[in-house]
Amino acid sequence: MTTPGESTGINEPKGVSRRGLLSGALVAGLGGAVVGAAGGGTAAWTMASSRAATADDVDGVDLDRSHPFYGTGRQGGISTEPQRHTVFMTFRLAEAASSTSVQTLLARWSAAAAVMQDGRPVGTVQPEDDVAPPVDTGEAFGLSPASLTVTIGLGPALFDGRFGLAAHKPAAFTDLPTLNGDVLDPNFTGGELSVQACADDPQVCYHAVRNLARLGRSTVSPFWAVLGFGRASAGTGQETPRNLLGFKDGTRNVETDEQYDEFVWIMNGDQPWMEGGTYQVVRKIRMLLETWDTDRVGNQQQIIGRHKEEGSPLSGRREKDTPDFALKSATGDPVIDPLSHVALAARENNDGVMIKRRGYNYTDGLDPNGELNAGLLFISYQNDPQHFIRLQNRLGGHDLLNEYIRHVGSAIFAVPPAPERGHYVAQGLFE
Amino acid sequence: MTTPGESTGINEPKGVSRRGLLSGALVAGLGGAVVGAAGGGTAAWTMASSRAATADDVDGVDLDRSHPFYGTGRQGGISTEPQRHTVFMTFRLAEAASSTSVQTLLARWSAAAAVMQDGRPVGTVQPEDDVAPPVDTGEAFGLSPASLTVTIGLGPALFDGRFGLAAHKPAAFTDLPTLNGDVLDPNFTGGELSVQACADDPQVCYHAVRNLARLGRSTVSPFWAVLGFGRASAGTGQETPRNLLGFKDGTRNVETDEQYDEFVWIMNGDQPWMEGGTYQVVRKIRMLLETWDTDRVGNQQQIIGRHKEEGSPLSGRREKDTPDFALKSATGDPVIDPLSHVALAARENNDGVMIKRRGYNYTDGLDPNGELNAGLLFISYQNDPQHFIRLQNRLGGHDLLNEYIRHVGSAIFAVPPAPERGHYVAQGLFE
Repeated sequence: MTTPGESTGINEPKGVSRRGLLSGALVAGLGGAVVGAAGGGTAAWTMASSRAATADDVDGVDLDRSHPFYGTGRQGGISTEPQRHTVFMTFRLAEAASSTSVQTLLARWSAAAAVMQDGRPVGTVQPEDDVAPPVDTGEAFGLSPASLTVTIGLGPALFDGRFGLAAHKPAAFTDLPTLNGDVLDPNFTGGELSVQACADDPQVCYHAVRNLARLGRSTVSPFWAVLGFGRASAGTGQETPRNLLGFKDGTRNVETDEQYDEFVWIMNGDQPWMEGGTYQVVRKIRMLLETWDTDRVGNQQQIIGRHKEEGSPLSGRREKDTPDFALKSATGDPVIDPLSHVALAARENNDGVMIKRRGYNYTDGLDPNGELNAGLLFISYQNDPQHFIRLQNRLGGHDLLNEYIRHVGSAIFAVPPAPERGHYVAQGLFE
Repeated sequence: MTTPGESTGINEPKGVSRRGLLSGALVAGLGGAVVGAAGGGTAAWTMASSRAATADDVDGVDLDRSHPFYGTGRQGGISTEPQRHTVFMTFRLAEAASSTSVQTLLARWSAAAAVMQDGRPVGTVQPEDDVAPPVDTGEAFGLSPASLTVTIGLGPALFDGRFGLAAHKPAAFTDLPTLNGDVLDPNFTGGELSVQACADDPQVCYHAVRNLARLGRSTVSPFWAVLGFGRASAGTGQETPRNLLGFKDGTRNVETDEQYDEFVWIMNGDQPWMEGGTYQVVRKIRMLLETWDTDRVGNQQQIIGRHKEEGSPLSGRREKDTPDFALKSATGDPVIDPLSHVALAARENNDGVMIKRRGYNYTDGLDPNGELNAGLLFISYQNDPQHFIRLQNRLGGHDLLNEYIRHVGSAIFAVPPAPERGHYVAQGLFE
């Protein structure tokens, strides 16, 4: 295992990708510079690779796509077109962690994320001299970038004084209070750092998080992790993805630049290092699917406030129709129940506030009673944690859906902007 | 919830797919006949759907592909080109289950599998009269078939006398004995029925298994389940998929018709209902990834017997090179360690025996120690369970890899041939 004092082993040779010709040939020292502030070492061994002749005959358009890590202003995985899969992992810092080791970790993670988003191995898979373990674990070798984005977040505990960062904590950034309806499992709650790896291939997601965990091993240990699926639309036929309740989820989401600027990106905040960043809220929401599945569609629709098939509000016919919360039925009742999910969450009923929802379905198999252990890994981005807190307190207190869901996991992280090349995520926090 | 005495609610209207125009319009009673021997009911409500104009702009070729369920001789998901994802679930029978209820279950499952493989909802998503829960849970509505195959298996306990089937048990079919290296967790071991749903979209897999579990609810209860990923190659760039050890897995697999006939399909067996069927062995193999990742590549390669990058045997240069177990190095040692995985498993060292391996990687997140809880959902198909037993006893006793893996789950199932249209899986067993 490498340690922070050593070279990151993360190279940036030009034109080298994970998709190798698989000739078995290795070329040593292509001369890439080690990236980021972490590694003091020089170029390490790397693999000779060039695009395979057979690559991407089937879904080339999608899987060949890559997102840059550096210089984009915002970190990826927030306003990025949703990928099909995620692996989300939180970490706890080792007792021995210092400000320097946290910086080194963030630098190594940034360098590795940049390389992996480009579809390249994190250093060598197979060192020619064979005196050390390979840097890259290898299971993604040959795979395309698959639109990988790595999103790195910092938990509130990072600012507790251990690392001299208390003065740099944004005033808005605190741990989430206990919210209405919380039944949190401590095994899925909190964390001092987070990594969200999203891609169109789950093996690419898993590889990314596993390798970051490995690179950070002396500084952090994995705390909890969720594999998410099924929440993206491109090419699958679900223009708006459906959650495991069978309903469309994400119809009225933050989409326009103006909405991102107003509700997602931090601008003119109290901490320069978070300028252009955002806050990530993660909730592991178990769905009681067997109970839900015994419910009539009419009742399901009343609870959600939308038609199941079309996804239209009960007051309308088309998915994108604006809900009319004032519309009354012939009997004088509101057509959209005021305690429905859509009514409680709608911007019209929350002083115009929106949050960017970017979650995934998950399954943990079966619970000890043989019931489906599955639900939604809810992930939202917002420039003020209070926006989420307020929404969830309303939903947790009143939502008709509460009979069918349990918030079992929860965490919040500050997500700094993307670094420029040669820098790393949250570097400004330490300067 | 529907019960076996009611209509299956599973319709076969012509030209109706899950990928609807999403107009919100419903057309009642398109007049499809209820399929299979199970349902005594008549046509139920169904959804008006036609191909969406925007379908498949991105990965159309792949996701639009569908496999027929009926009349194919063999069940799908065995010799089918591997799909990217699986949800595998085992079931236990209710105490009250009878021969009739098991037949009804298999008929309902067959009818539903046929409909879902065709990319259609299992009955209604949204009944127009709204007096009952929807038959289909809805989360796959709009999704394409995604090459779904549903493979249904029968566990050895089904033949224990409860259902009058003891005389129809193939002589070769017994529960797996305790094998060398077993450290089985009873929560992932055994099962009286199995469903393997493979598709190129995990939401399609999950939907299939969830809906089968729901249709069978009064007869069976789910026992254990695993979500698998990352084991298919088409379009991803890994011509041979890699397991989480980072090595290619499946290079020397059953591929030709002759190999399938010799090692996979049952022919001239002792039970006519299993003619053309096979046996499914499932092993949940935890990999100790952190330990593996600290190992030198040279040692990893010695353990596997192959080069990590190319996948070639240590005696050769190309992945497909035949391993030369007799080749000696300059020092007189065998180039491929006789206790390496490839040496112990090779047909050359096992009287020519092969098994069809068709497993997937899995992750269960983290274990209580914060270690990666992940590995291989090994699934193999063979026409004689003894072939697997013999191989695994050799591997479990001697394989250098045993230091890094744990067999924590295990089951075996008889997989009958595919039914003809109008019939159901294993119908011959009851006649």
